[in-house]
Amino acid sequence: MANSRFEYVKSFEQPDVLLPNTWIVVRIDGRGFHKLSDHYAFAKPNDRRALDLMNAAAVEVMKELPDLCIAYGVSDEFSFVFHPNCQLFERRNGKLVTTIVSTFTAHYIYKWSEYFPERPLLPPYLPSFDGRAIVYPNNRILRDYMSWRQVDCHINNLYNTTFWTMVLQGGMSNTDAEQELKGTVSADKNEILFKRFGINYNNELEIYKKGTVLYRQYELEEPKPTKSSADEESLVVESQQSRSQQDKIRKLRRKAQVVVDHVDIIKDEFWEKRPWILSGNPGKLPA
Amino acid sequence: MANSRFEYVKSFEQPDVLLPNTWIVVRIDGRGFHKLSDHYAFAKPNDRRALDLMNAAAVEVMKELPDLCIAYGVSDEFSFVFHPNCQLFERRNGKLVTTIVSTFTAHYIYKWSEYFPERPLLPPYLPSFDGRAIVYPNNRILRDYMSWRQVDCHINNLYNTTFWTMVLQGGMSNTDAEQELKGTVSADKNEILFKRFGINYNNELEIYKKGTVLYRQYELEEPKPTKSSADEESLVVESQQSRSQQDKIRKLRRKAQVVVDHVDIIKDEFWEKRPWILSGNPGKLPA
Amino acid sequence: MANSRFEYVKSFEQPDVLLPNTWIVVRIDGRGFHKLSDHYAFAKPNDRRALDLMNAAAVEVMKELPDLCIAYGVSDEFSFVFHPNCQLFERRNGKLVTTIVSTFTAHYIYKWSEYFPERPLLPPYLPSFDGRAIVYPNNRILRDYMSWRQVDCHINNLYNTTFWTMVLQGGMSNTDAEQELKGTVSADKNEILFKRFGINYNNELEIYKKGTVLYRQYELEEPKPTKSSADEESLVVESQQSRSQQDKIRKLRRKAQVVVDHVDIIKDEFWEKRPWILSGNPGKLPA
Amino acid sequence: MANSRFEYVKSFEQPDVLLPNTWIVVRIDGRGFHKLSDHYAFAKPNDRRALDLMNAAAVEVMKELPDLCIAYGVSDEFSFVFHPNCQLFERRNGKLVTTIVSTFTAHYIYKWSEYFPERPLLPPYLPSFDGRAIVYPNNRILRDYMSWRQVDCHINNLYNTTFWTMVLQGGMSNTDAEQELKGTVSADKNEILFKRFGINYNNELEIYKKGTVLYRQYELEEPKPTKSSADEESLVVESQQSRSQQDKIRKLRRKAQVVVDHVDIIKDEFWEKRPWILSGNPGKLPA
Repeated sequence: MANSRFEYVKSFEQPDVLLPNTWIVVRIDGRGFHKLSDHYAFAKPNDRRALDLMNAAAVEVMKELPDLCIAYGVSDEFSFVFHPNCQLFERRNGKLVTTIVSTFTAHYIYKWSEYFPERPLLPPYLPSFDGRAIVYPNNRILRDYMSWRQVDCHINNLYNTTFWTMVLQGGMSNTDAEQELKGTVSADKNEILFKRFGINYNNELEIYKKGTVLYRQYELEEPKPTKSSADEESLVVESQQSRSQQDKIRKLRRKAQVVVDHVDIIKDEFWEKRPWILSGNPGKLPA
Repeated sequence: MANSRFEYVKSFEQPDVLLPNTWIVVRIDGRGFHKLSDHYAFAKPNDRRALDLMNAAAVEVMKELPDLCIAYGVSDEFSFVFHPNCQLFERRNGKLVTTIVSTFTAHYIYKWSEYFPERPLLPPYLPSFDGRAIVYPNNRILRDYMSWRQVDCHINNLYNTTFWTMVLQGGMSNTDAEQELKGTVSADKNEILFKRFGINYNNELEIYKKGTVLYRQYELEEPKPTKSSADEESLVVESQQSRSQQDKIRKLRRKAQVVVDHVDIIKDEFWEKRPWILSGNPGKLPA
Repeated sequence: MANSRFEYVKSFEQPDVLLPNTWIVVRIDGRGFHKLSDHYAFAKPNDRRALDLMNAAAVEVMKELPDLCIAYGVSDEFSFVFHPNCQLFERRNGKLVTTIVSTFTAHYIYKWSEYFPERPLLPPYLPSFDGRAIVYPNNRILRDYMSWRQVDCHINNLYNTTFWTMVLQGGMSNTDAEQELKGTVSADKNEILFKRFGINYNNELEIYKKGTVLYRQYELEEPKPTKSSADEESLVVESQQSRSQQDKIRKLRRKAQVVVDHVDIIKDEFWEKRPWILSGNPGKLPA
Repeated sequence: MANSRFEYVKSFEQPDVLLPNTWIVVRIDGRGFHKLSDHYAFAKPNDRRALDLMNAAAVEVMKELPDLCIAYGVSDEFSFVFHPNCQLFERRNGKLVTTIVSTFTAHYIYKWSEYFPERPLLPPYLPSFDGRAIVYPNNRILRDYMSWRQVDCHINNLYNTTFWTMVLQGGMSNTDAEQELKGTVSADKNEILFKRFGINYNNELEIYKKGTVLYRQYELEEPKPTKSSADEESLVVESQQSRSQQDKIRKLRRKAQVVVDHVDIIKDEFWEKRPWILSGNPGKLPA
């Protein structure tokens, strides 16, 4: 074929398959959202509509990619998690990450007017996201990753809530508030909120304090200790699932509803009640 | 800080810096555009509005990322090219690719209604794109990559034009047309078009035959042989540009207009008249 | 410094750190040992001195690198295994592999004359080895890797024993023996050996049938089921060991004797009696 | 086959092919040679026999691997260079590096007694080497890499020569000599050597001042400016050489003698007189 003289350039494409039998986390982040949130006047410290839009776009990503088993979002970032037995796109790093980034962006832009009807998008201020994939070798570390993000959510939200209350309700300048908060611990911030502004941080909305977790809904199970050992065995077997088995499981997953939740994912309870997330085996659909 | 217990999970993030002093090509492709083009009834073999929308989104990417020096698009794919001296995002693969994919997607979705006013987007048929980065070690191979894409454009367009003319004007079934075209060379297809349908392929629109090339417009120069040797020397020096020099060059690039062109990029002439593309040094702005 | 003009070339060195908390297997293979074994007239199907030399060199590697917790050798290959909590050389792929390959080669060459006193090495027939690192995310898969090598040992040894007995004792040509063995299963080969030559394969030396496993010797423990779950927890903690803790453990490991064994490593028993191998925690030194 | 149950572990092996059409440098370094040179009482600041042994081992590597086109050694390190059109081992990083490291180690150990007859090797003090591969995208940068190593050789040798002269001839303590040299420039060190010890640094042996360069000897050519542009063109073509063409070139290379030289490789002259090194095309064998 006439093209063959140039086709050698394909040989420069490097493979980027992720290590088999590991958890894949794709985390996306808003690009320049600090400036963007100013431009579209997002509420401080949290803009409920902006978070709802993030979550709505993430739900669409979960629906389009049944291989995803859980996702966690906070602020302008979202982490999407593929199970160790995931074979989607032969586990190619670039393909997985760009598909998620693009699908998320598409829905975010498409749904914007629904959440911000009075503030239409205007280039060059179009929201966009970057992303990366990270692999984790076992359940324990995957859960530590999820905990890391949720602790981060808590720390940032407590800080931001205190800071913006001091500024917006307390009339302080940004610099003064920043200065006063330097070196404070959680207890200090809780006290500032309560003593000066009568705000009990515990009463803040769960979506702000806990972030958002998305997963497919099956019937909850009685908590029982997770059996990592058994899990490991199963992974190996599942990685050798035939394509038809994989397709079957994908169909089962599509049938489950994607739930938007704001709960603790650090403690065991969340995972023990929803064993299908770590096992990768679809649970029983609710009646 | 309270988060430190979990923060070790960051150590699983792997670096992905691309080899210095090499051309970086980020090629994006429409995901499932075959089905999508059916759903939104794109014209066959080429839908002018769909191509114009691709090009419009790509122009926005070029404007947002002045480090890009050229881009080439055909059908539902676009290749964006960073110069060997590019230091954007420290040349991190994932960051470069996802930024381009997301920015392109955002503009594509945002501008859709402008190009297809009578066919509003409707989930789950939202367009999205995947992407990958490839590095090329020298000018010769970068140009071979560009030639590869343009030859591909020609081959596919000649085939598609002939096929769809046989089907739409000749009333043949898809299978019959496919069957007849099997094993034919370019001359055969030209003849079918001309003899049966009176169509001179050479008169087809350049945008269909040549695809689309985007670049920043400076004053054209007298063609003179490219001096690869000198280029090489300059690359090394430029890679050691200070940040302020890089910022200055970026500003100069922003000032240049991004041109949408449909010309031959295989022969030397295109590159010799526009030496700033391969050299990376901004040319003289047109008066 | 005068060198700075050229020092930018260091920026082309790419990082190659292996994923944390995974098993690292470095497998080395003799280069061109087929020709080499002819040249130095190795006995067929197994040359005991050649195997002893491989094992002796591998023992020295184990001694020099206390981070290694087990090794398995067969024919002209050896697999060396680092624990998931290993931090040696910051887990750099190239550094780990080349250190093992070079140390092994050095001892192999150095000890050659001890094992083959009557056949001195003569360039260009100097033995050398290549190597590669592979990471495995959990105990189950690491053990499957070890089983893979031992099963391979068995399959090859049964074949080679039968083939060479047919040739050397049965007077068959290589081609005839090869032809007859095509398509046979284990039972067939056992029968050929027994019926034609009175050889009971089970009575062959364990070193030929099982290959060689090297590990540090502590007091054997009562077999109890391995607790992968607990293991996983511990890994995370250990990966955050301080440097002084790592040094301490390294010293403890140096004290243990490196054992040369020829036993089954596929079944659980081997691992349950020697829990220190999978746990990475030194056991109790024998009195 | 019985092994198939475990064979899935092979899927964890990751590809590591180096970017096509780039220079490959494999640099190896002595492991713990500071301690080793004390143990075997290497002469200070340079031990001629130790350098000769390094060079002898490197010559053997060049002979075994005709794909190598040049090598440069200084102290206990050696850089081996493969041409951009090299296809050896499909350009697999690990295979290339470990083969060189192992072959070098084998010859180093084997030849030791020839260079140090009175100081036999004694474990655990066996010399070994680690190594890494780096790719460089064009001739200019490859030459800058070579220059970097030779400038390093000069800087270190001038320092070491001055330091050890002060200590061994001047009777200073190591600390005092180190202290006095802190912050000095080349001119200062030249002056110390000349004024205090009557040593003209220029008269030192070339092997110490310039290090060692190895290459295949063909008839020298009239210096003419290197044509990088043409080179680039040729690379592309050569990378598509057939296997038989590659074999033919390999044979031609084997016929050329490997030369051990101690000359300037920073200036153009060396490269212009020996165009076969950068072009990769064997020159004319001397009569």
